[in-house]
Amino acid sequence: MSLHIPEKPVRRPPALKPGGRIGVAAPASPFDKKRFETGVNLLRERGFEVVLPEGLFSRKRYLAGDDDHRLAILRDLFSDPSIDAVWCARGGYGSMRLLERPELDNLGLHPKAFIGLSDITALLNHLVIRCKMATFHGPMITTLADADQQSIDHLFALLGGGGVPPILARSSRVIVSGKAEGRVLGGNLSTLVHLLGTPYFPDFKGSIVFLEDIGEKPYRIDRMLTQLLLSGSLEQAKGVIFGSFMNCGAEKEIETIAAERFSSLSIPVMSGFPSGHAMPCLTLPLGISARLDTDEASLWYLESALE
Amino acid sequence: MSLHIPEKPVRRPPALKPGGRIGVAAPASPFDKKRFETGVNLLRERGFEVVLPEGLFSRKRYLAGDDDHRLAILRDLFSDPSIDAVWCARGGYGSMRLLERPELDNLGLHPKAFIGLSDITALLNHLVIRCKMATFHGPMITTLADADQQSIDHLFALLGGGGVPPILARSSRVIVSGKAEGRVLGGNLSTLVHLLGTPYFPDFKGSIVFLEDIGEKPYRIDRMLTQLLLSGSLEQAKGVIFGSFMNCGAEKEIETIAAERFSSLSIPVMSGFPSGHAMPCLTLPLGISARLDTDEASLWYLESALE
Repeated sequence: MSLHIPEKPVRRPPALKPGGRIGVAAPASPFDKKRFETGVNLLRERGFEVVLPEGLFSRKRYLAGDDDHRLAILRDLFSDPSIDAVWCARGGYGSMRLLERPELDNLGLHPKAFIGLSDITALLNHLVIRCKMATFHGPMITTLADADQQSIDHLFALLGGGGVPPILARSSRVIVSGKAEGRVLGGNLSTLVHLLGTPYFPDFKGSIVFLEDIGEKPYRIDRMLTQLLLSGSLEQAKGVIFGSFMNCGAEKEIETIAAERFSSLSIPVMSGFPSGHAMPCLTLPLGISARLDTDEASLWYLESALE
Repeated sequence: MSLHIPEKPVRRPPALKPGGRIGVAAPASPFDKKRFETGVNLLRERGFEVVLPEGLFSRKRYLAGDDDHRLAILRDLFSDPSIDAVWCARGGYGSMRLLERPELDNLGLHPKAFIGLSDITALLNHLVIRCKMATFHGPMITTLADADQQSIDHLFALLGGGGVPPILARSSRVIVSGKAEGRVLGGNLSTLVHLLGTPYFPDFKGSIVFLEDIGEKPYRIDRMLTQLLLSGSLEQAKGVIFGSFMNCGAEKEIETIAAERFSSLSIPVMSGFPSGHAMPCLTLPLGISARLDTDEASLWYLESALE
C-alpha cells in the first residue's frame, strides 16, 4: 500500500448551510409525485429552500423529458449563482444519453454539491473525472422517503461541511483482506458496465471502487462482474467495496458470486457495505481520498469533501 | 457501397450429411429436459445421430457445470473426428466466462458447424474472429421445440450444404435506406454489449451487424443501443439488421427506439428481420459475406457457408 496522491485534486463544492437553496434536477427517468413530495418536505423541514425548475415533471417514455430538456435543467441549476446544491429527483435511465453533450463539461465551473445514485452514477463519475469536481453518491429526493435516521444524519452532517463521518460496515464480509488508500469512485454496477467501451467509463486507476445494484438476477451480476474483470478496468484500482444488492436474489448467493469472481484480485475487496438502494444508505463523496481497511470493515475519508 | 473483400477468409465447416453425428454442448446455462428431448427427437427424425457427452446435464447455480467442465465438453466435441457438428443445448449465461481460455483458440483447427444463439453469441463471434471459422446463429436444441416449418426448412437446407437460401423480411421497417455488403456478425444485443470494453468484443469493421434480444425492457434496449453508439463500434460497420425483440415491450416502441438511436448512422439499417428468439428464426451464417438491401428487405449471402 502506498499513499495515493491525486494528480489533479478535485474542486470541492461549498458546504450546504441552513437556509440554502437546493435545486432539483431529473436527468434520468420520471418519478412518483407522492414519494417526491415526501422527500421535498424532508428537505424543507430541515430548513432548506427547494427549487423546482419549470418542466421538472416532464415525461417522454421512460425519460423525464427529452435530452435537451433534462440537460437544460441541469445546466441552468449549475449556472444559477443563487442555487447552493443540485439534488436528483430519481435515477431510472437517461443520464448516459447526456454524456456526449459539451455543455456538461462546464458544470464544474460552478461547483455545487451534486447528489444522486443509481443511473445518476454516469453523471457522478463524469463530473469527477471530466469536471474535476467532487460529487455525492447518496439518496435521491424520491429515496429520501425511505431513508432511516442513520442515513439522514450521515447525509446532513456530511453536506453541512463537518467532514465525512467514518463509515463502519457492521455486517461486512472480507473477500480479499487488506488496506488501501485512493479516491472513491463507482456507484451502480449496471450503469457502470453500460459505459464500458465508451469514452465515458471512469478511470479507476488509483481508486477505491464502490459497486451496488438493484433488481438484477444473480447471473446478471456474474455477467457484469465478469465484464469488469475482462475489461481490465480494475487492474490499477486500489480496492473494491460491494454495497447493497437489493432484490438481486439471496444475499448469500451474491456474496458467493462476488467472492468467486473477485477473490483473484490482488487488492482489498469487501462486501456488505451500507450504501446503495437498500437502507441504511450512507452517502459517499466521490473523487475524494479515503482509506479502506477490510479487517476493521471501515472506510475513513482522508480529506474534506466540501469547502 | 463497395464490394467487401474479407482480409482473411474464414474456414467453412463441412456440410452436415444425412446420418451425420451431432454433438451437443452446453457452454452456458442448464436446460429443461423435456424441451431438450423434443429437440433431440427432431434431429433424430431427420436421420442424424445425436451424441450426448457425459455430464451434459450438470448444474452449478445458473451454469451447466463449472467453467472447466463446460469447456471440456466443447473441446472434446471439436477434437473428436467422428463428430460432424456441435449444437448448443441452450443459452442463458456462461459463454463469456470461457473466452479467456486458450483452449478455445484451437477449436477452429477442426471446423465443424457450430449452432446456437442468445448467450452463445459470445462464442459464435469469437470463433469467427479468433478461429477464422464460419458459425451459425440459429435455433438451439431446446428452441427447436418451438421452431416453425419455415425455420426448420431453412436450417436444414443451409446445414445440408445447398447454399444459403435468400432471406426476405416480410414485415420489415427501413430505418436508414440503402444497400451494403459485408460479412454478417452479431447476435444477442445483451451478450454483445457485455463484451464491450473487453478484448472479446467482435470487430464490426466491414460487417453487417445483426442484433436481437429477449425479455429486456425498452429503457434497457435504449441503454444498450446508446452504449453501442458511444463505443464507436458501429462506425466502420456496413449495415445493421434488427431481428426479433421478444417480450421486450410493444414492438412499435422498440422500433421507435431503434429508429431514434440509429437513424443518424450513415449505413443501411433495417428492423423486423426474422431471426432471434421469436419464430420464424432463420439461421444466419456468421463470418460469411452477404448483401443487404433494405428496400427489398432482403439479405442475400454471396458465399457458401459450408464446404
